Amino acid sequence: MLKVGILGVGTVGTSVAQILKDNADVISARAGCEIVVKSGVVKNLAKDRGLDIIITDNVDDVLNDPEIDVVVELMGGVDEAYAAVKKALQNGKDVVTANKALLAYHRYELQDLAKDQAFEYEAAVAGGIPIINALRDGLTANHIESIMGILNGTCNYMMTKMANEGVAYDAVLKEAQELGYAEADPTFDVGGFDAAHKLLILASIAYGIDAKPEDILIEGIDKVSSEDVAFAKEFGYAIKLLGIAKKDGSEVELRVHAALISKDEMIAKIDGVMNGVSVVGDKVGETLYYGPGAGGDATASAVIANIVDIARAGKRSPMLGFDKPMEGKLTLKSTDKIESKYYLRINVSDKTGVLARITKLFENNNISIQTIVQKSTSKTDANLLISTHTAMEKDIQNLIKEIEALDFVNKTPVMIRIV
Amino acid sequence: MLKVGILGVGTVGTSVAQILKDNADVISARAGCEIVVKSGVVKNLAKDRGLDIIITDNVDDVLNDPEIDVVVELMGGVDEAYAAVKKALQNGKDVVTANKALLAYHRYELQDLAKDQAFEYEAAVAGGIPIINALRDGLTANHIESIMGILNGTCNYMMTKMANEGVAYDAVLKEAQELGYAEADPTFDVGGFDAAHKLLILASIAYGIDAKPEDILIEGIDKVSSEDVAFAKEFGYAIKLLGIAKKDGSEVELRVHAALISKDEMIAKIDGVMNGVSVVGDKVGETLYYGPGAGGDATASAVIANIVDIARAGKRSPMLGFDKPMEGKLTLKSTDKIESKYYLRINVSDKTGVLARITKLFENNNISIQTIVQKSTSKTDANLLISTHTAMEKDIQNLIKEIEALDFVNKTPVMIRIV
Repeated sequence: MLKVGILGVGTVGTSVAQILKDNADVISARAGCEIVVKSGVVKNLAKDRGLDIIITDNVDDVLNDPEIDVVVELMGGVDEAYAAVKKALQNGKDVVTANKALLAYHRYELQDLAKDQAFEYEAAVAGGIPIINALRDGLTANHIESIMGILNGTCNYMMTKMANEGVAYDAVLKEAQELGYAEADPTFDVGGFDAAHKLLILASIAYGIDAKPEDILIEGIDKVSSEDVAFAKEFGYAIKLLGIAKKDGSEVELRVHAALISKDEMIAKIDGVMNGVSVVGDKVGETLYYGPGAGGDATASAVIANIVDIARAGKRSPMLGFDKPMEGKLTLKSTDKIESKYYLRINVSDKTGVLARITKLFENNNISIQTIVQKSTSKTDANLLISTHTAMEKDIQNLIKEIEALDFVNKTPVMIRIV
Repeated sequence: MLKVGILGVGTVGTSVAQILKDNADVISARAGCEIVVKSGVVKNLAKDRGLDIIITDNVDDVLNDPEIDVVVELMGGVDEAYAAVKKALQNGKDVVTANKALLAYHRYELQDLAKDQAFEYEAAVAGGIPIINALRDGLTANHIESIMGILNGTCNYMMTKMANEGVAYDAVLKEAQELGYAEADPTFDVGGFDAAHKLLILASIAYGIDAKPEDILIEGIDKVSSEDVAFAKEFGYAIKLLGIAKKDGSEVELRVHAALISKDEMIAKIDGVMNGVSVVGDKVGETLYYGPGAGGDATASAVIANIVDIARAGKRSPMLGFDKPMEGKLTLKSTDKIESKYYLRINVSDKTGVLARITKLFENNNISIQTIVQKSTSKTDANLLISTHTAMEKDIQNLIKEIEALDFVNKTPVMIRIV
């Protein structure tokens, strides 16, 4: 059993504890052992978090607890968090953090301190997207040519809204604040600083380069107006806040700023609060990673992935993902029981009464039609293009047989499922 | 030093050997040791592959070589490959394969055989995309609700071409064959079998479920016509060959077929020969992985990532990706030296000669204009919206200062970089 202590039981911390309980079946099967949260540190002891863990307001209760194997740091901020994780490492504990500011300033000191323990931080960049995992372990064969990231969901929500609905900057900021996507003081997000912290972490993994936020170009989206968005649309661009790392000979360019980017690029297609990171390797070419960049459960998903990594350390990670097989629990669904919406193309002789007889067969098979389009294919023949509401595969298969048997149907109907 | 033997030195095998040499600097820094290919097995000894490795036509020369640590299986096919990797494991060697058919039929036997060695297969699904890595290690906190994959680049190329250019199925297949994307007998790709092999591998990792290709619904794209594509476009759908795994209570649905999918879905935006996999976890929500699904170098990138994993086994993977720091080699580029295209919004009093004086300043700063749009903002004022060709950051910054100083310029110009 692996015992976890959480520093900072807020939204993400509560999700970590809750998911480790809710999904204990798959998590322990994948990790090869049980993982439980023993205790958590909070500022306000009076608030009930609905968790059956020990709650304390003293970090040392976790850091000095010999039973705790893994310390999860979710306090935020730089100095206090640095002191806490340093002490955790000195006390022989593995550490998992979601704290991007801590890493933007102290990642190389932490790498030195963590020689004998794990120090993991998947949740610090792009929330639930396993981008650290991909960049550090999945693309090791490559010189990284460039990284381009939509690393801040607040900015991407605002830029998308301005582009799609022509809303002015101030109005969309107000709306983002009302929805809880932006803080009362939005500077950290809209000024590009949050994205910069994340970019510096990615740049270290890609290039082994040390740089602090103060060393790089950081601009935000606060100068972008509706006129700019209209120009962008007219000339085939999207506007995004991008974090960019680019190798140029022996130099690395690091910058965060609003950017016009061709609508054909995959990264320009990432809209709303979602995050995405495009990585170009000299051998693999472009790969792109997309998903939720924030939210309690999504961030906790990344934190727990790191805890599972730690639980597996020293053992071999199971080849097919599960240490114990899961087959007993899940079985293959029979094809007949698949449900889907369907599209059918039926080639018929164009006679009176054809449509009535065919639609009657749909009704007999309990299949409800959504749209019908009829297109002539010759003077005598026509295609019926029909989409359905959700139906059962066995009913559709039966319907197709019945339709095929009709004398005015010329070819086997073609069926394509609608997903 | 880690020594590698390659079974099958074709396109991918040659890329593996070449990249391990070309990118030895980053690969050894990340792996913590040197990785070299010692020998390779081929069918035709006469053909020169331009590699300085031992070439043999006898697999046992590799499998029985006590110096070989890792066997890379790139032979393809099922039975011969199975016999070879089985012997490799029995001889105590770690194995890396790109062979999806082998895994579609024998993955659970191989998991049992590989208790004491690594058996890795990142390249077997979606080529260069580290999807095995993401699904097996990055999303361990989640019950996987569904996987939807564009797993066959040939089919995706054909579907994209039919949709974008209205080309008929037969013509686009012929073109794919001429470009080398499709085989002379294209059944394995267009019939959905290749995608099905890959789907079965993903389903094992997500659900721990054993199923063979014969057990699941497999249909191809060969019935899709231009009429279907036109209908899809009219009703807001893309057409893709999808591999789908979906959990429904205690059952798992596995199916491969052409599908109409709403154009708003991220996966519908993946075009051409590219692959992509959307994974929905109960906690993280949707994450998506995009990249090249085939090609020698892209596939080799995934093979080498697995070899690096093996080199790191037992050691802790370096926190920031590099075991030895790389800082000495790469330095941060100064902001002044950044090159980009630029967009400028300049608010001016609308007088004669304004445009001439402003464009002259562009010329003086060696900045070439690509487009100019002028839009009135009031009776007396106008916005000039200007995009440039590639220019130097320091020139643009100087230009902005000069423009700002002009008496008919009302506000500080806004600049957005074009990426």
